[in-house]
Amino acid sequence: MLDGLIVSIDAMGGDDAPGIVIKGIEYFLKNEGKNRRARFLLHGDEAALAPLLAKAPLAKARSEVRHTELAIAMDEKASQALRRGKGSSMWNAIEAVKQGEATIALSAGNTGGLMAISKVRLRMKPGVQRPALAATWPNAKGMGVVLDVGANVDCDAAQLTEFAVLGEAYYRALYKVENPRVGLLNVGSEESKGNDTVKAAHERLSQSELGINYIGYVEGDDISMGGADVFVTDGFAGNLALKTAEGTAKLIGTYFRVALQNSLWSKFTTFLNMFALRQLRKQIDPRNVNGAVLLGLNGIVIKSHGGTDHVGFSTALGKAIGIAESNFMDEIDRTLDALHEEDVDIGFIA
Amino acid sequence: MLDGLIVSIDAMGGDDAPGIVIKGIEYFLKNEGKNRRARFLLHGDEAALAPLLAKAPLAKARSEVRHTELAIAMDEKASQALRRGKGSSMWNAIEAVKQGEATIALSAGNTGGLMAISKVRLRMKPGVQRPALAATWPNAKGMGVVLDVGANVDCDAAQLTEFAVLGEAYYRALYKVENPRVGLLNVGSEESKGNDTVKAAHERLSQSELGINYIGYVEGDDISMGGADVFVTDGFAGNLALKTAEGTAKLIGTYFRVALQNSLWSKFTTFLNMFALRQLRKQIDPRNVNGAVLLGLNGIVIKSHGGTDHVGFSTALGKAIGIAESNFMDEIDRTLDALHEEDVDIGFIA
Repeated sequence: MLDGLIVSIDAMGGDDAPGIVIKGIEYFLKNEGKNRRARFLLHGDEAALAPLLAKAPLAKARSEVRHTELAIAMDEKASQALRRGKGSSMWNAIEAVKQGEATIALSAGNTGGLMAISKVRLRMKPGVQRPALAATWPNAKGMGVVLDVGANVDCDAAQLTEFAVLGEAYYRALYKVENPRVGLLNVGSEESKGNDTVKAAHERLSQSELGINYIGYVEGDDISMGGADVFVTDGFAGNLALKTAEGTAKLIGTYFRVALQNSLWSKFTTFLNMFALRQLRKQIDPRNVNGAVLLGLNGIVIKSHGGTDHVGFSTALGKAIGIAESNFMDEIDRTLDALHEEDVDIGFIA
Repeated sequence: MLDGLIVSIDAMGGDDAPGIVIKGIEYFLKNEGKNRRARFLLHGDEAALAPLLAKAPLAKARSEVRHTELAIAMDEKASQALRRGKGSSMWNAIEAVKQGEATIALSAGNTGGLMAISKVRLRMKPGVQRPALAATWPNAKGMGVVLDVGANVDCDAAQLTEFAVLGEAYYRALYKVENPRVGLLNVGSEESKGNDTVKAAHERLSQSELGINYIGYVEGDDISMGGADVFVTDGFAGNLALKTAEGTAKLIGTYFRVALQNSLWSKFTTFLNMFALRQLRKQIDPRNVNGAVLLGLNGIVIKSHGGTDHVGFSTALGKAIGIAESNFMDEIDRTLDALHEEDVDIGFIA
């Protein structure tokens, strides 16, 4: 058996798995995770993992492989993943958390499948309907959390209120900040703006005496400008906003390369300027913010971007360990209970 | 009276109006609009406009001032703007289009007010419920149109279908492209993804035989990657996505400045590299894509960003003139009629 903090990993999830997974763990242990004591349960095909682990000595020394030949495909429907997913690398990664063998599960696999299996195996916290997917996003003042980013495409006001509570606890655990500012994303900051769902959630959060630092409506540009720390929205708008932001960063990266290479002179001076440009590239690299957490479950599950490489996987792994080491689960229990008690007290019905 | 193409301008709309408006017209006539024959009806306070026009000889020579002391405040509610807006600079700018004195109206003022007044004075095209706001956005392959970006925070499938038809005609008129690709924004490109409204609109557009080049679901990152030419979504998600993209571009601009100035060496080499950086800055400058059009009205109304400066206002003005010179209105009549006929034929009820 492994001792210390244990991360249960779906080694077969992701466009380029299992390669990026094993390389990602090795990369993590060589860099950010050099002094971490975490150990890993790797769920996947032993025959595929063995040669990869042979080239990743740090990862190998801290891992235990749990063999399975089954894996969920990236394009499988959630319902399908659930039906035929038992015993797959993803299923087993989650099951290890349920059985208390690991503190946290991590997968770069199929998002819908991960949600469905997590929900069925770990079950939701009392009163929560579905898991929310919370992403981190860099902003002008540091880091922000945006949720939901795709798990719930139709949300009612009660769910948005829950997201506020879940996101707030997550932010505190992840960034050790006392009173993160929680904002509700809307099309304008005036009271009269927005659809009925957003207005109802705004009223509920404004009335609350839970001690959440609710700052009211915020807008899309606040996500990058740091207008709040926690950004609450439904999964449809949140997914669209985040993917649009990713696309924008990618586009600017392209412009950047073209602009800096369109003449010999530019090439030369760009070479001289390399250091500053490397810093910049690092800041706009989505691999450095990879890893979204599924909130509201009886257990912690982290979703890495499916298309990421080993650097991105390493970021998600670092995030997983950071959360596993925090008081995150206790905090969520405390704040959710308080929310639902208050819901009853003030007669709030979604 | 003015001859040739006439643009009716709300000279008092915008955070820094009327200064940016007059400077914007002058800037346009000195640069992009050097050879354009357009003329301008300026609605606003004569006493405020006269000294500005005295410093803008090109604008003065082509403008006629229509005095009014009334103006809609930037933070006024739409209902309020409508109630007390009669005779205001915004109202009169739209009224001139209604009366046939001008081909197109342009305002950097209050969006809600502009929508409400446009709707009441110009009225919607038959069968259209509310105007949609269509923005242009640069992408890796050229330019894209995104709609709705904030006019309709709750949309049904029939509206999304209309947006597709309106946006397609707009794109053809603005960019002289024969068969623009129309995509429906969703949280994934698989058939099973999305909420019920999006799924119903997808089915309707897939069935259509109107000759629209409908390519199915697209995602947020396609907006910047050029995955479609016309991006259809509801006003809540569209507004959030676009503002998030703006914020991201702004944040990267900040990173950019910091990264390139954090050492003397960087400062020196950056100076050498100035030309390439200027090109880049131009490409990510939101002022160069300013100007959203209100679609579905009996008349053309352009909304400039309220916080823009004279350069941004000039961009919106150029866009206004480009649309006014195109066959945009005829095309919209033709395609909307065809859509609604087909709606009846196939028994599509939203």
